[in-house]
Amino acid sequence: MDSSQFREAANSAIDEIVQYYDTLATRPVLPSVTPGYLKPLLPQGPPEEGEQWPQIQADIEKVIQPGLTHWQHPKYMAFFPANASYPGILGEMYSSTFTAAAFNWICSPAITELETVVLDWVAKMLALPDCFLSDSPGGGGGIIQGTASEVIVTAVVAARERIVRKNLLAEGFTSPDAEEALDRAADIRGKLVALGSEHAHSSTQKAAIIAGTRYRSVSAPRNANFSVTASSLRSTIEACKAKGLTPFYFTATLGSTNTCAVDDLEGIAAVARDYPDIWVHVDAAYAGSALICPEYQHLTGPMSSFSSFNLNLHKWMLVNFDCSAFYVKSRKDLTDTFTLTPAYLRNSYTDSGLVTDYRDWQIPLGRRFRSLKLWFVLRTYGVKGLQQFIRKGIKLGEFFNGLVDSRPDLFTVVTPAAFALTTFQVSPGNGEPNANSDTDEANRLTKAVFEKVDQQREFFITSSVVGGIYVIRIVSANERAEEKYVQEVFETLVKAAEKVKRGV
Amino acid sequence: MDSSQFREAANSAIDEIVQYYDTLATRPVLPSVTPGYLKPLLPQGPPEEGEQWPQIQADIEKVIQPGLTHWQHPKYMAFFPANASYPGILGEMYSSTFTAAAFNWICSPAITELETVVLDWVAKMLALPDCFLSDSPGGGGGIIQGTASEVIVTAVVAARERIVRKNLLAEGFTSPDAEEALDRAADIRGKLVALGSEHAHSSTQKAAIIAGTRYRSVSAPRNANFSVTASSLRSTIEACKAKGLTPFYFTATLGSTNTCAVDDLEGIAAVARDYPDIWVHVDAAYAGSALICPEYQHLTGPMSSFSSFNLNLHKWMLVNFDCSAFYVKSRKDLTDTFTLTPAYLRNSYTDSGLVTDYRDWQIPLGRRFRSLKLWFVLRTYGVKGLQQFIRKGIKLGEFFNGLVDSRPDLFTVVTPAAFALTTFQVSPGNGEPNANSDTDEANRLTKAVFEKVDQQREFFITSSVVGGIYVIRIVSANERAEEKYVQEVFETLVKAAEKVKRGV
Repeated sequence: MDSSQFREAANSAIDEIVQYYDTLATRPVLPSVTPGYLKPLLPQGPPEEGEQWPQIQADIEKVIQPGLTHWQHPKYMAFFPANASYPGILGEMYSSTFTAAAFNWICSPAITELETVVLDWVAKMLALPDCFLSDSPGGGGGIIQGTASEVIVTAVVAARERIVRKNLLAEGFTSPDAEEALDRAADIRGKLVALGSEHAHSSTQKAAIIAGTRYRSVSAPRNANFSVTASSLRSTIEACKAKGLTPFYFTATLGSTNTCAVDDLEGIAAVARDYPDIWVHVDAAYAGSALICPEYQHLTGPMSSFSSFNLNLHKWMLVNFDCSAFYVKSRKDLTDTFTLTPAYLRNSYTDSGLVTDYRDWQIPLGRRFRSLKLWFVLRTYGVKGLQQFIRKGIKLGEFFNGLVDSRPDLFTVVTPAAFALTTFQVSPGNGEPNANSDTDEANRLTKAVFEKVDQQREFFITSSVVGGIYVIRIVSANERAEEKYVQEVFETLVKAAEKVKRGV
Repeated sequence: MDSSQFREAANSAIDEIVQYYDTLATRPVLPSVTPGYLKPLLPQGPPEEGEQWPQIQADIEKVIQPGLTHWQHPKYMAFFPANASYPGILGEMYSSTFTAAAFNWICSPAITELETVVLDWVAKMLALPDCFLSDSPGGGGGIIQGTASEVIVTAVVAARERIVRKNLLAEGFTSPDAEEALDRAADIRGKLVALGSEHAHSSTQKAAIIAGTRYRSVSAPRNANFSVTASSLRSTIEACKAKGLTPFYFTATLGSTNTCAVDDLEGIAAVARDYPDIWVHVDAAYAGSALICPEYQHLTGPMSSFSSFNLNLHKWMLVNFDCSAFYVKSRKDLTDTFTLTPAYLRNSYTDSGLVTDYRDWQIPLGRRFRSLKLWFVLRTYGVKGLQQFIRKGIKLGEFFNGLVDSRPDLFTVVTPAAFALTTFQVSPGNGEPNANSDTDEANRLTKAVFEKVDQQREFFITSSVVGGIYVIRIVSANERAEEKYVQEVFETLVKAAEKVKRGV
């Protein structure tokens, strides 16, 4: 494909992309294909001779589109959003044009430096404490990684090695590669336990598996709004210690996956000060984007007591997946663990110590140019445009919550609209006080209603189980979300609930 | 940015992208910026109000271009290539359009299924044994991950847990979450040691750090062409066992970073059969792409004895970064370790067991639609086009090797052209037999010549140290590579060597 063929192909692709978004609402949000649909539609292998673009492009509509779930669709209300935007797409176009495996500064200085600059911009927008800025005296800073789960593995492993190094030093081991030191390090690792809310995203438990440490969940019951309190965390820490285990890491959640619960960050900050060996990470993967609105910025106050923080700009900040921002108070905590510099990676800039080599802040070596799309999004929307977008989602959440409240004969809100997410159950009774208290029956009804709506495939919604309660989760916070679709999903739920309650 | 603004912006971006590639050879391959160049060129934060695209686009040429290292430039001959291509860019355009955090099948069936299909295509192109195909009776298959380093962490952690599970079972532990089983698992992990060639990429050692296990390198001296032999691996395994350690993982390298050495795969296969508890992974990150040419396919014979294999299609197969293909003989080895299914991720398709949820094969949860760009590249070039591209690189390597050989008074080849990479030294003598044997002097001269050429910034080349020998590495294998540039870099090296040897 030469330049002029590419120009033609790309212009045609742009037309198709615009057409896709302009007609998105008329497509079904969920595909109707069955597992294994694609293989019979494609040849057994690649062609011997190259094909022309029009032939390839035609297959996108023919074989790919029927198998897509449309996350940008206004009827997508599942999980959390993974928002795309036009400036985000432009960012990916340039990023792939400037392809580089930019692991070191010299591999493409702009890739490293734009990342540092725009992550400082984002930290300021979120009102994060200054300790997370790249020019903070303590040596903090931000990095873009792929996903929150990748970030959390990075934090857990760095936390594990930080406490191992500290203990070895305290015990007088001066050469960490000596066999005795390795033995002792293994013993220390063997007693470590990572902690997270029972409602923390599963990525914390998975990170503990990857890091090879134990994992314990901290209880966060319904009467605490499914949030971890200081006393709950403290008692879990002490219970671990009583068993001879060493808690070394805790994920505090700002916006849990189940209900968008926010752990008691003020209280947890006090615990963090009492147990300085525990690395506290704040996972604000989805809800963190709301911190760009001043009405949420009181939440960032306690964060200077924590080691690290992340939010997925690809969830709610209109930056196309993947773009997870990870901030640390001390980048040395990362580089002490992840830096390895074989001869083939040495260069005078790295040796000078004047540059950031982000490879030493992360698990993979190579890195994409992900800051471009973030830069384009921030500039295209501006701070006000992004705040407006976040507030639209919040308002739609409150609107849905109000609709649910309007039908106490059918529904009970389990957790009210928080960061655009409402969870609710189908009520077993008739809405009269004390008539809705049969949990098993409520769970059965709610599951039946969820399955009915799920099978209709008109909307993409998800359910969960939180503290033994089966809930339907509705979150409508992508760019094409509108009140009329929220109204529609509600009516669909009402019809389903009426049928289920009538036993139809 | 609405649809019509996007169309205009994107078409203008396409023009700029074409212009970039058409004029690439006239730009300097390396930027001349100094560390910290970018921050003063940008505002302190994002704008309050959104900006228009022309204003944003203008800054790409103004502030980003001066800081780019151009990996697609014909004078880029450093590290290994990270090839971009026009169909690869088209793939990223559509991928970002269909943005989804596609962790489960139902999150977008086409994203999962196209990945399975095209990775089977690639496996067949490479003549990998059938055990790595998705429909193999043993349950193998491929997945696209970001980088080889991410793949290797995944393999090391899966290998670690595989041996832990096996030992616990053999010792009669039936409930792996019981405190006693956790204690015993920690003891087992504490004795594990991962192995890799002394010339294996640093990602294996880094993976061992992340997994919290020990690491030992296997010697691969110059008289074995810097390759690991069966006897060298066997004696390292036995030495570890004699110390009470348990070797559980070995990275065999097909194309080492320093010299493109290939470990003795036949011999290692025999070792693997003798030590079935050791997970042998073949890292063919760069050189693996050459396996699409029949003249290299004898190398795949022994691979059915190994647990896993990876190659970076983003290095030498014209698929834009990132696209690392990871094949396993038993996907159960991955899912047994990485599967966690909290309530909010449950769905009827996952429960049915009929679909692949790639999240359970990897560290992160979310995934990009990376198979599209691979599909576009395979179809646009065709098998023949890709073979032609690989052979062009091979031929340029041999051409450069010949040039070096033509000047024995100045240079000595250390490792002859292998997969397009030649490494060489500056000779201390005059080219007469026995006159070139002073290693320290050769190292000093070679380093001086490298630094001279590096400082000229006309070409981007890299150096390394292999078995105590300082070498210059030249690999010219991107799409714009041409004989004339290889000739030019050679003349530049000649001039530098003549000056250094004259003491100028």
